[in-house]
Amino acid sequence: MSIPLAEPTSLDEGTLRVTPLGGLGEIGRNMTIFEFDGKILIVDCGVLFPEEHQPGVDLILPDFEPIKSRLDDIVGVVLTHGHEDHIGAVPYLLRLKSDIPVIGSGLTLALVEAKLKEHRIKAFTLTVKEGQREQVGPFDLEFVAVNHSIPDALAVAIRTPAGLVLATGDFKMDQLPLDGRITDLRAFARLGEEGVDLFLVDSTNADVPGFTPTERSIGPVLDQVIGKAPRRVIVASFSSHVHRVQQVLDAAHAHGRRVALLGRSMLRNMTIAEDLGYLKVPSGLLIDYKKARDLPDDKIVYMSTGSQGEPMAVLSRMANLDHAIEPGPGDTVILASSLIPGNENAVYRVIDGLTKLGANVVHKANAKVHVSGHAAAGELIYCYNILRPKNVLPVHGEYRHLIANAKLAQDTGIAAERTIIASNGTVIDLKDGEARVAGQLDLGFVYVDGSTVGAITDADLKDRRILAEEGFVSVIVVVDAATGRIISGPEIHARGIAEDDSVFDDVAPKIVAALKEASGNGVRDTHSLSQVVRRTIGRWVNQKLRRRPMIVPLVIEA
Amino acid sequence: MSIPLAEPTSLDEGTLRVTPLGGLGEIGRNMTIFEFDGKILIVDCGVLFPEEHQPGVDLILPDFEPIKSRLDDIVGVVLTHGHEDHIGAVPYLLRLKSDIPVIGSGLTLALVEAKLKEHRIKAFTLTVKEGQREQVGPFDLEFVAVNHSIPDALAVAIRTPAGLVLATGDFKMDQLPLDGRITDLRAFARLGEEGVDLFLVDSTNADVPGFTPTERSIGPVLDQVIGKAPRRVIVASFSSHVHRVQQVLDAAHAHGRRVALLGRSMLRNMTIAEDLGYLKVPSGLLIDYKKARDLPDDKIVYMSTGSQGEPMAVLSRMANLDHAIEPGPGDTVILASSLIPGNENAVYRVIDGLTKLGANVVHKANAKVHVSGHAAAGELIYCYNILRPKNVLPVHGEYRHLIANAKLAQDTGIAAERTIIASNGTVIDLKDGEARVAGQLDLGFVYVDGSTVGAITDADLKDRRILAEEGFVSVIVVVDAATGRIISGPEIHARGIAEDDSVFDDVAPKIVAALKEASGNGVRDTHSLSQVVRRTIGRWVNQKLRRRPMIVPLVIEA
Repeated sequence: MSIPLAEPTSLDEGTLRVTPLGGLGEIGRNMTIFEFDGKILIVDCGVLFPEEHQPGVDLILPDFEPIKSRLDDIVGVVLTHGHEDHIGAVPYLLRLKSDIPVIGSGLTLALVEAKLKEHRIKAFTLTVKEGQREQVGPFDLEFVAVNHSIPDALAVAIRTPAGLVLATGDFKMDQLPLDGRITDLRAFARLGEEGVDLFLVDSTNADVPGFTPTERSIGPVLDQVIGKAPRRVIVASFSSHVHRVQQVLDAAHAHGRRVALLGRSMLRNMTIAEDLGYLKVPSGLLIDYKKARDLPDDKIVYMSTGSQGEPMAVLSRMANLDHAIEPGPGDTVILASSLIPGNENAVYRVIDGLTKLGANVVHKANAKVHVSGHAAAGELIYCYNILRPKNVLPVHGEYRHLIANAKLAQDTGIAAERTIIASNGTVIDLKDGEARVAGQLDLGFVYVDGSTVGAITDADLKDRRILAEEGFVSVIVVVDAATGRIISGPEIHARGIAEDDSVFDDVAPKIVAALKEASGNGVRDTHSLSQVVRRTIGRWVNQKLRRRPMIVPLVIEA
Repeated sequence: MSIPLAEPTSLDEGTLRVTPLGGLGEIGRNMTIFEFDGKILIVDCGVLFPEEHQPGVDLILPDFEPIKSRLDDIVGVVLTHGHEDHIGAVPYLLRLKSDIPVIGSGLTLALVEAKLKEHRIKAFTLTVKEGQREQVGPFDLEFVAVNHSIPDALAVAIRTPAGLVLATGDFKMDQLPLDGRITDLRAFARLGEEGVDLFLVDSTNADVPGFTPTERSIGPVLDQVIGKAPRRVIVASFSSHVHRVQQVLDAAHAHGRRVALLGRSMLRNMTIAEDLGYLKVPSGLLIDYKKARDLPDDKIVYMSTGSQGEPMAVLSRMANLDHAIEPGPGDTVILASSLIPGNENAVYRVIDGLTKLGANVVHKANAKVHVSGHAAAGELIYCYNILRPKNVLPVHGEYRHLIANAKLAQDTGIAAERTIIASNGTVIDLKDGEARVAGQLDLGFVYVDGSTVGAITDADLKDRRILAEEGFVSVIVVVDAATGRIISGPEIHARGIAEDDSVFDDVAPKIVAALKEASGNGVRDTHSLSQVVRRTIGRWVNQKLRRRPMIVPLVIEA
């Protein structure tokens, strides 16, 4: 199934080359590059959040290697919507070249600009709307409204002489969205009539049967829970989910409660959303949380971040009584959010902490307080039937999602060989209505850690995992440069190994003996002597403690 | 809600003291001690599996501290069933005193004995059956059949002059179990008539509404999937789930396939289950997996371990092509198991790997191939109504489960003050039909790591987490004992920090300067000089790399 590494041939005239750099075989860091006539267009530039086997990593970026030597050929980066997995890596891209034009809808660009401001980057932007057409280098772009869990999301149709490509970005097909802005199936139909040569389509929910329920269905549940709540209400959700927050505001308003926004990103994003008219705030509804504490308990709703159990976010801090708002008996906490795989332990720890404090915790598992932002299988089939694309490239998903999506396409009559299961770095050439795999680039993970980008390697992460599971033992011996005689040590120190250092008293004489033997055999260089130390203590720790810590031996000449 | 630490008063005559040592506020390491008239009975003695914030830990034991000085008073340990979270810590208990009698059903004791054999312990055992009554010290024990996801599970009624206690162990109320052995509600009714003074009840599924479906409902699904499978079938499940394996064997047999068992624990447990008559194996059905490879692909079912994505188990190794059986296109893999919270990433990684190899992966999310082993809310309410216990102690669960269970009890009319939300170490005294909290012991986590038990502390785990997230920097300086002059160093080495060590070239002169300054101020002892080194490099790394690694400074005199 996997495509062997192969540099693609040089690009023929009149051919469009499509290369996903991220988002295939993973949920996150979505990024695809399109090359035609020597020019490059980028669609999306997101981050991936690390898993537990990537300790200490802050963010993971797409591997920019294929475009690093081509920066002057980039004509623009189109952002389909304002989620981190589609915009989070833009600052790192603009660090390479700050004047790459950034193209997206009003809300998307406002969110990107807030992010760029933190990185002290001022970008060149072009705001676009659904229905708009823009020529960017050799790429004729048309933007199409799509519905998602953030307002103002766009699909993009890319026309070149090689054919017509449609990239959905993330989307679903809520037919009664709060803002009335549905995924524009009339435009999809028109593009289908014209002939879609390649369809890049969101796969996140391709293995979920049926249809994603409407966002509107959550409103009555929030209304009922908030209406019945005897004391304070705390709602946690994603800080960019404008329509979810809107429904919380509406329910609070209906029950005579005021709302305090909590969490830096919640405040920032909702201020942007209100300024741009995406969030409708009844006058006098919002209140600063410090003032909110003076209100009676049944007159307030706190709208906060932390629905994924992030340790530094508001909700986790509340659960740990490490926040000014301390939940207690009679309070109601609503997690109006999904539970992203991998976050279960953290989220359940927060739910448990809040329950222990006496709060009534309402979440996805016991009430209908969340719907997904992605099209399920039933919706995707509608798209395939309306578009009838010549070639399909499922994107945005783990392999099982990509494969499930390809099967849906095949169910609607698209030939299996026209549905391409690719991975990051797969090079796909489109010409004359035919898409074919032209090569496979070897791309890696680029880790952001503290102020470093790409400095941490997979080898470092392996070291970290060993340190985490086994700890380390350092052994320092100072020897006389001339005679090789031990002047000081061995000093043995361990961390994360359970025993106090006296457990190593037994092995010190063995190290001395091993060094003397080596020295007697004429070994004198400190590197070789260090290896003698490593072997001696490594074997001893393994036998005596049944452990394999990292051994850090150091023989110093003085 | 939490009970302040308080040593309980000495135990009055005629009072039964109940102290859970594990299993409250967590899923695992279930263990409760009962004390009467100077004698101690233990019910269950299980392990807890570590989470990602406990790296390198193999197992977590209950804290045996409260019984360590009372070993001669222990009259026996009753094991309700053979799951690891109820029996896994028995070897560590018997290491303290090897002749504590171990009491349980036939299958339970066979599984414990297999485990004890690996620890080279031979135990004193007493095999009991449902309906049996045994006097153990001052405790009059009666065993009651309960249904669970392993055969031969028992609840235990404990009679003392202080009253009648019923402990369910883990259970559900499948009314049509494969082996016909239902939870004995007639016995529950009889005990209820007699008067249950304290009811210790499984809370695992107390927050799940309704009723757990019957195990039998999985059979037709397995039959259909295996019947339609074009090539090989691989089923993964828990290695002690005899009835699940039975249904796989039956489905394989019905479709003319033979079955090869894979994985050490699967082979061991199923051999025990077959020997004792719990697993019925059609003659000639089983085949060694090495011979199975000679069969046509549509004539074999592999029954394996690894349904939780455990990296060393068979299924993960298959997904990584690190096993003799290599899944491929046309093969069907069934994960007939739950997805234990915390394992999602690992399990989805395996599902993805198998999908990428071309296998069709059937799991809980896309087919009814698993039912829970625990009573849901509807079943628990039946129990409360039949038993009408005077006092209720929800056990086996996170806090949210314990609280949900207490609410169910209250729904049936039991007063809130008679439902006790306790934590590990809560001391509960029962006398004259009244249960009251008498104190709270301070218990910890006992970590098994390699050959050590209890040697790893929470401080070590904190060190490991820092090492995992940030790595470490060691700095060694050799100074002249007499003059304080630097003879060698600073040698700076880092691991897990991304940069090659040359990044530290800048800070070496700063360290030298700081040491000279300290020396000039008369600082001479190596510990204080080490602190100077720590501060200097720590501040530098924090500012320059925006990181907070573990700093290991060492100033040595030579």
